[in-house]
Amino acid sequence: MKISLQELSARLGAQLHGDPALQVQGIGTLQHAKPGDVSFFANPRYRKQLETTAASAVILAADALSFCPAAALVMDNPYLGFARVAALFAPPQERPVGIHETAWVSPDAVVHESAWIGPQASVAARARIGPDVVIGPGCVIAEEVVIGQATRLVARVTLCQGVRLGSRGLLHPGVVIGADGFGIANDSGVWVKVPQLGGVRIEDDVEIGANTTIDRGAIEDTVIEQGVKIDNQVQIGHNVRVGAHTAIAGCVAIAGSVRIGKRCAIGGAASIAGHLEIADDVFLTAASEVSKSITHRGIYSSGMPVQENQIWRKNIARFRHLDDLTRRVRRLEDHCGFTQDHDS
Amino acid sequence: MKISLQELSARLGAQLHGDPALQVQGIGTLQHAKPGDVSFFANPRYRKQLETTAASAVILAADALSFCPAAALVMDNPYLGFARVAALFAPPQERPVGIHETAWVSPDAVVHESAWIGPQASVAARARIGPDVVIGPGCVIAEEVVIGQATRLVARVTLCQGVRLGSRGLLHPGVVIGADGFGIANDSGVWVKVPQLGGVRIEDDVEIGANTTIDRGAIEDTVIEQGVKIDNQVQIGHNVRVGAHTAIAGCVAIAGSVRIGKRCAIGGAASIAGHLEIADDVFLTAASEVSKSITHRGIYSSGMPVQENQIWRKNIARFRHLDDLTRRVRRLEDHCGFTQDHDS
Amino acid sequence: MKISLQELSARLGAQLHGDPALQVQGIGTLQHAKPGDVSFFANPRYRKQLETTAASAVILAADALSFCPAAALVMDNPYLGFARVAALFAPPQERPVGIHETAWVSPDAVVHESAWIGPQASVAARARIGPDVVIGPGCVIAEEVVIGQATRLVARVTLCQGVRLGSRGLLHPGVVIGADGFGIANDSGVWVKVPQLGGVRIEDDVEIGANTTIDRGAIEDTVIEQGVKIDNQVQIGHNVRVGAHTAIAGCVAIAGSVRIGKRCAIGGAASIAGHLEIADDVFLTAASEVSKSITHRGIYSSGMPVQENQIWRKNIARFRHLDDLTRRVRRLEDHCGFTQDHDS
Repeated sequence: MKISLQELSARLGAQLHGDPALQVQGIGTLQHAKPGDVSFFANPRYRKQLETTAASAVILAADALSFCPAAALVMDNPYLGFARVAALFAPPQERPVGIHETAWVSPDAVVHESAWIGPQASVAARARIGPDVVIGPGCVIAEEVVIGQATRLVARVTLCQGVRLGSRGLLHPGVVIGADGFGIANDSGVWVKVPQLGGVRIEDDVEIGANTTIDRGAIEDTVIEQGVKIDNQVQIGHNVRVGAHTAIAGCVAIAGSVRIGKRCAIGGAASIAGHLEIADDVFLTAASEVSKSITHRGIYSSGMPVQENQIWRKNIARFRHLDDLTRRVRRLEDHCGFTQDHDS
Repeated sequence: MKISLQELSARLGAQLHGDPALQVQGIGTLQHAKPGDVSFFANPRYRKQLETTAASAVILAADALSFCPAAALVMDNPYLGFARVAALFAPPQERPVGIHETAWVSPDAVVHESAWIGPQASVAARARIGPDVVIGPGCVIAEEVVIGQATRLVARVTLCQGVRLGSRGLLHPGVVIGADGFGIANDSGVWVKVPQLGGVRIEDDVEIGANTTIDRGAIEDTVIEQGVKIDNQVQIGHNVRVGAHTAIAGCVAIAGSVRIGKRCAIGGAASIAGHLEIADDVFLTAASEVSKSITHRGIYSSGMPVQENQIWRKNIARFRHLDDLTRRVRRLEDHCGFTQDHDS
Repeated sequence: MKISLQELSARLGAQLHGDPALQVQGIGTLQHAKPGDVSFFANPRYRKQLETTAASAVILAADALSFCPAAALVMDNPYLGFARVAALFAPPQERPVGIHETAWVSPDAVVHESAWIGPQASVAARARIGPDVVIGPGCVIAEEVVIGQATRLVARVTLCQGVRLGSRGLLHPGVVIGADGFGIANDSGVWVKVPQLGGVRIEDDVEIGANTTIDRGAIEDTVIEQGVKIDNQVQIGHNVRVGAHTAIAGCVAIAGSVRIGKRCAIGGAASIAGHLEIADDVFLTAASEVSKSITHRGIYSSGMPVQENQIWRKNIARFRHLDDLTRRVRRLEDHCGFTQDHDS
């Protein structure tokens, strides 16, 4: 399809700098866009690429306007604009209907006539599959699972017994929802399993990345509230609750019974210890380790960026004696007659 | 089912404080239990919830007795008591028998008549499936795999060629056992694969969490000893040996040829470098990084809990000069005439 | 098979110290090899095992010759020699041909007559499967996927729409290639999905470990260049490019748009933040965190090895005040009249 910049800017609510009649027909990166493409500029790392782009139009914020060699669509949030343009140009997604000849559906399951059950998928007894749902190839739907309208399981997703998914969800391949939480009690050196009798409830408009796992609760449910977006290889333990519109990047580990607030952003490879509470609007940078509850919104960080190996080796060797070093400094302060205003 | 507190306390070996005739019929958390429910108190974080619980009975340790508003079942290990009560009230698990119409079983495989092979599962030649085994939907059982009595593969588990599982195991969806270890040798800048000719042996009573991977050995077997409990998304490299009754929490990375002792507890997101030995009874807190062998039992830790971002930024910038800082302190000590009793 | 040390040393290009007529017939570890076995010595940790090995021959470097009680095959890179010997003795791998009776192949897919499509696998429309390809049990091949010659998908691999694999690849169970990248734009507190319209291109001779995920690009492709070796549970975000002959150990997290050079080695559990560039020939030790681009080859590290818990607790508490400690040292230096040659 083709669309004029006039119409595009109107759809985006963007301010247009350039020829309103110019037609665009695709998207591209700043570096590789061709004439006819729309691109976007949202990360200052790529300013050189902006200055030399061959795109016909670029979505950008006002402060970048002077660097743009093409028509400009000015918005406060250029990445949001790009999301909309990409959706405009995205090829329509196939959505077949019916039950594939190699799928197996229990006679006791209820599958809406507008849903699709793909090749090699299985749907167990008493499952209820809503309208417009897509169960892709190789998915396993266990007993009593409930899936709301227009949710899409791309392929090879496993939903364990009784898991409930809302509407308009998107689950990528390898996702496992509702496996037992890690509940074990020690009996004189031998582990006894704690039966995991809760379930999992995923609300509407949740996206879950490839090979992510979300465990069922021990007694009550694990809950993912509406609009939560979860990347690949995230682990969410039993009885966790993730607040609405929180985003969780890849490889995050969330231990059991954690409560995360609304609109949080959890950076990749972060980890959160069990039973903690994270307030609303908390931003954790990548690789953060949380071992205490966070009670106020804000940006929190930990972790140690790389150095050259031989410098790091020296520093980390010193770290092993940091308590001692601090005491040595105190002794020097005493010696020099400095008032001790530190609690060390 | 209903059970009186008298009978329940007898079964648990607990000391009862309360009406022995009181009937209970389910379980609940301290916060949400209803009358008729049994709850438990094992984490001091939840003391307020204990004080206001509506549960009819609470399993707890003697020192919490005075805070309990309900009947009390006093045990040294309340969580163990809860595990037993939950098992009592857990609904019986379905265990069908036979080979599902959509499963494929090689004519050269041996499947015990009391086992179940679920929908879309496949069992390859020369595999041997023991009595009461459950192979859930979508599982892949490769050639020569051996599975002991009453082991349950929930769904979509992959056992590669020759993997041996003991009895009473429980493997959650997405588990992969016996994939090739990461063995590569460098030949003038190009990697040459080292064939992985060992196998994997999992002993009895082992539980393995969703999407966990355990690689086959390069020459000898990777071994998981009896009673080991492994959470989700754990990676266990080739030729690792995990000692009996060790517990490994989620997202732990264990490199090749590591030997872990018996009764260890490895916290979530910890990592252990290759070829190390961990003694018996070692406890690693969450996110620990192990880069040397640990020869004595005890609690070990590393990692850096989050701070507010701007404080962390300052501290981590200083860390990059910690060796230098230590030298500056030494110079001050020299200046002040302090004896150098430090090796720095 | 049996082979004489004379022939074996010729094949390896190794210098033989020992009886050229001696026959060997298998491989073993230094510790458990039997007479007739070949072993190798490449890690100084195992020198004691070398000195007492029962192997008939050991591949080793010249400097270890004097510790070897058996015939020796001397090579600069003993591990490479072992890789070759193991390949020699490895049992030939089964490679059936045809389409299994329980597989489903779209009539619009093109499958080479020498390829194998295993049990419960599915191949969607317009996919093209090359000669000698093995699609193991339970694999899902989506629309328009292209797979080059002799690539092997062991089992339960998912290739999403349009993914292209080169020749001689090896993909282990649970791999997911081409799931949507994590692209979300915030619209007043609600996340809007950014359609992921790029693909994934995997070049020749790439190995990918169990449960690893590689996302499709947002606009352009995610690219894994030739000869790259990736271990288990690695996450590679959208639009990443990994240079030829780079090796990535288990549990590494690579965020979106990262560019990694050629011949790099990324240690296990390392993480790399988004949009960074890593030069050629960079070596990252295990658990490294990269938050800035690395422009020069070399060895880089971060992370904190474990200490006994109570020592670590003291040190980490001090770390939280490291900026303050550095200021205190500066004050002492001022007091002592030291020239401030530090920028602190």
